[in-house]
Amino acid sequence: MSELIEKGKLAKAAAQKLAVAPTGLKNAALRAMAQALLDKSGFIIAENQKDLDSGAANGMSDSLLDRLKLTPARIEGIAEGVRQVAELPDPVGEVMSGVKRPNGLKINKVRVPLGVVGVIYEARPNVTADVTALCLKAGNASILRGGKEAFHSNMAIVSVMLEAADAAGLPDGSFALVEDTSRESAVALMKLREYLDVMIPRGGAGLIKSVVENATMPAIETGVGNCHVYVDKECDFEMAENIVINAKTSRVSVCNAAEKLLVHKNIAEKFLPGMTAALIEKNVEIRGCEKTREICPGVKPIPEEEWGYEYLDYIIGVKVVDSLDEAIAHINKYGTGHSEAIVTSDYQRAQRFLDEVDAAAVYVNASTRFTDGFEFGLGAEIGISTQKLHARGPMGLNELTSYKYVIYGEGQIR
Amino acid sequence: MSELIEKGKLAKAAAQKLAVAPTGLKNAALRAMAQALLDKSGFIIAENQKDLDSGAANGMSDSLLDRLKLTPARIEGIAEGVRQVAELPDPVGEVMSGVKRPNGLKINKVRVPLGVVGVIYEARPNVTADVTALCLKAGNASILRGGKEAFHSNMAIVSVMLEAADAAGLPDGSFALVEDTSRESAVALMKLREYLDVMIPRGGAGLIKSVVENATMPAIETGVGNCHVYVDKECDFEMAENIVINAKTSRVSVCNAAEKLLVHKNIAEKFLPGMTAALIEKNVEIRGCEKTREICPGVKPIPEEEWGYEYLDYIIGVKVVDSLDEAIAHINKYGTGHSEAIVTSDYQRAQRFLDEVDAAAVYVNASTRFTDGFEFGLGAEIGISTQKLHARGPMGLNELTSYKYVIYGEGQIR
Repeated sequence: MSELIEKGKLAKAAAQKLAVAPTGLKNAALRAMAQALLDKSGFIIAENQKDLDSGAANGMSDSLLDRLKLTPARIEGIAEGVRQVAELPDPVGEVMSGVKRPNGLKINKVRVPLGVVGVIYEARPNVTADVTALCLKAGNASILRGGKEAFHSNMAIVSVMLEAADAAGLPDGSFALVEDTSRESAVALMKLREYLDVMIPRGGAGLIKSVVENATMPAIETGVGNCHVYVDKECDFEMAENIVINAKTSRVSVCNAAEKLLVHKNIAEKFLPGMTAALIEKNVEIRGCEKTREICPGVKPIPEEEWGYEYLDYIIGVKVVDSLDEAIAHINKYGTGHSEAIVTSDYQRAQRFLDEVDAAAVYVNASTRFTDGFEFGLGAEIGISTQKLHARGPMGLNELTSYKYVIYGEGQIR
Repeated sequence: MSELIEKGKLAKAAAQKLAVAPTGLKNAALRAMAQALLDKSGFIIAENQKDLDSGAANGMSDSLLDRLKLTPARIEGIAEGVRQVAELPDPVGEVMSGVKRPNGLKINKVRVPLGVVGVIYEARPNVTADVTALCLKAGNASILRGGKEAFHSNMAIVSVMLEAADAAGLPDGSFALVEDTSRESAVALMKLREYLDVMIPRGGAGLIKSVVENATMPAIETGVGNCHVYVDKECDFEMAENIVINAKTSRVSVCNAAEKLLVHKNIAEKFLPGMTAALIEKNVEIRGCEKTREICPGVKPIPEEEWGYEYLDYIIGVKVVDSLDEAIAHINKYGTGHSEAIVTSDYQRAQRFLDEVDAAAVYVNASTRFTDGFEFGLGAEIGISTQKLHARGPMGLNELTSYKYVIYGEGQIR
C-alpha cells in the first residue's frame, strides 16, 4: 500500500505545519476552496453523473442514488458549508483553563489539533468537502477514503479543493483522498498508526465493526442509530403522534431517525390504532410485538433480532411495554447509544428516563431528529459519536481537537 | 475465560447502579474502604511479604522490589489517598454547558460516568486502591488485572476493600480483581468489548503495544515517558543543571523522569563537563553522541535505537544539537509525547518550543517531574495519557467521565 504510506508521510508533515498555521491562512484557503467548488460545479456534476450511471447499472436503490446525486443547488449547499466553517471561531490555541500553582508554576491547558485524522465513509460525496473543511479549520491534516460508489464525485471535489488550497498556500498533504477504493485499502488505512492520530468511520454497522476489529489507532465510532421513541402512560397523544411521525418519516435514511416505537400498555389500546394508521398513511411498514398485533390486526410480526436493527427505511418496530422500567431496559439492551426520546407529562418519569437511559442524546417531548451539530448550536458537524470516549453525540470543531499542558516555570524542581 | 465474562456481567450491572448512585453513598463507601485498609494492614503486609519473597527468589531487581513493598507507612499513604478521593467533588451530574435554542429546546451537556473501566497494570500494589477509588468516585465500575508479581498484595487489598464496600451498600460487582494473571487472561480482557467501555493500561511499552494490537474497546495509553530536557544556547547554567539533576535523579523509575539531555552546540563545551560530573556524582551513567564524547572523554557511546528508550534507571542519553530546530525535530521523532522541557532565557525560542513540541506537557524552565495529577492540581491521578484522544497528560476524575446531551422539549419536531 505504497499510496497510503506516501499520503501518510505527507499528511504527518503537513499536520505539523497546520498545527501552527495562522487562522487567516486557514480561512483564506477555506473561502478559496468554497469558491472553487462553485466555479467548477459543471465539472463536478459531470463526474458525479459517472457514479450515478454505474450506480443505476448496478441496481443501487433510489434512496442511495438520491444520497449520491449532486445538483447545482447541492453543490451550492456544499460550498456554503465550507464557507461557514471559515466563519467559525478557530478552536486552536484556546486556553481551556489555567492555574498558578503554589510553587509558582503557571499551568495552562491549551487546545491543539489532533494531528492527522483518517475518515472512512460511504456513499455521500458532500461528506468529502465537509470533513476536509472541518479538519482543516481545527488544524488537522486529513486522509479521506470514500466509497467506490462515489469515487468520481469524490475525486472531482478533492481535486478542485486541492488546487484552491495549494494556491492559497496550504502545505502539501493537508488533505488527500485515497484513490484505491478496495476493501484492502480501507483495512490498510486502519493500520496506519504511524501516521494517523485518529480514525473516524462514518457509515453503517459493517464499517464500524471493521474499524473496531482492525484499527490500531484510536477511533471514534459514529452514526449507527437504532433510536427509540417511548410513549409513556400519561402524555399528550397528539404531541406523541407528531413526534413519532417526525422522528420516523422526516428523513428515513439518517442515523437520528426513529427505528422503534415503545408504548406503555395502559394506553396502547387507545393510542396505537390512530398512531399506526398515521404511520401507514406515510407509507411506513409496521412490524410489531404480539400485543401490538392483537391491538392492530394486520401488523406483521417482528423477528426478535430486528429489535437491534437500524432499518434506515420506511419500516418501524413497535412494542408494547409493561412499565417505564421495561422501556428503559429494552432501550439500554437494544439501542446503539445514539438518540432516545420519551413522550410524557409526568415529571418524575421524565427525570428517570433522562438519568437512566444510556445514550448520547436523551429527549423529553421532542423528536430524535434534533441530534445534529447545527441543531445543537455547534456550528458544524463531522459526525455523531456513539461511544463514550473523547466525544459523544454531535462532533463539531472542538471535538476535532486535543489539548496540551503548557507550563511556564522559573527554575522549579520537585 | 468464564471468570472474565462473569466479572464483566456483574460490572456492567453495577455500573448502571453506580451511574445514579448518590454522592453520599460513594463517599461513605470510600471512607469505609480507607478505614478497612488501615484496620487490616497487618493482613495486607503479610500477604505482601509472600510477593516479596517470590520476587526475591525470582531475582527481581531492587528497584522493582521497592515498588512492590508495602509498609505500615505506605498503607497509611494508600488509605489516605482513598480518603482524599472521598473529599473530592463528585464530577457526575455537572452541567458542563447548556443552551436554550431558538426553537425552545433546552440542551444541557451533562457529565456522566464512562461505565465499566478495565485497568491492566504491573507491579505496584498501591495502584489497586488508587484506581478502584477513582473509578468509584466517578461512578464507574472497574475490573482490575494486576501483575502476577503483586498477586497476593492485590488480592489482599481488594478483598479488604470489597468487604467494606459491601457493608457500605455498594452494588455487587462495583470493582473486582481478575484472579487469573496469565498473559492469556490479559488479552481476553482486552477483547471484552461487550462489558468494558474503556481500557486503561498502566505499564511499560510491551503492555501498551499489546493493548494497541489486541483491545477491541477504546483504550487510553498511559505512562511511557521518554522525556527530554533541552538546554538552549542562552540560559542560566545553574538552573539548567538543577533541572536536569532533578528530572533525572529525583525518582528514576517514574514516567516523568528525564531520559535524555539535549544541549545546544554553542554552550556544549562550557556546560557539559560540569553537568556530566554532577550526574556521575549522582551515580548516573552517561551515554552520549559523538560530540558529547569529544567534550567528555570517557562517556560511552549511545546506540542509535536508545534515543527512543525509556531507561527508568540511572542512565541518561546526551546529544549535542546544532539548533533549536534540531532539538524540536529530535524530540518529535523519538519522544513518546509525555513531558518535554526547554531551559532558556530567550522568549521567542521558549514560545517556539511550547508551540512546536508535540507532547502532553511542555515546560519552560522547570523539571519534567511535575507532570502529575496532584502537582497539576487535579486532586488525584489515575495515570498520564500519552495519546491525544479523550484525555492527555495527567488524568483525574473528570477524565474518567463522559457526557450525555439532555434535551428538554415541549413537543418540538424538525
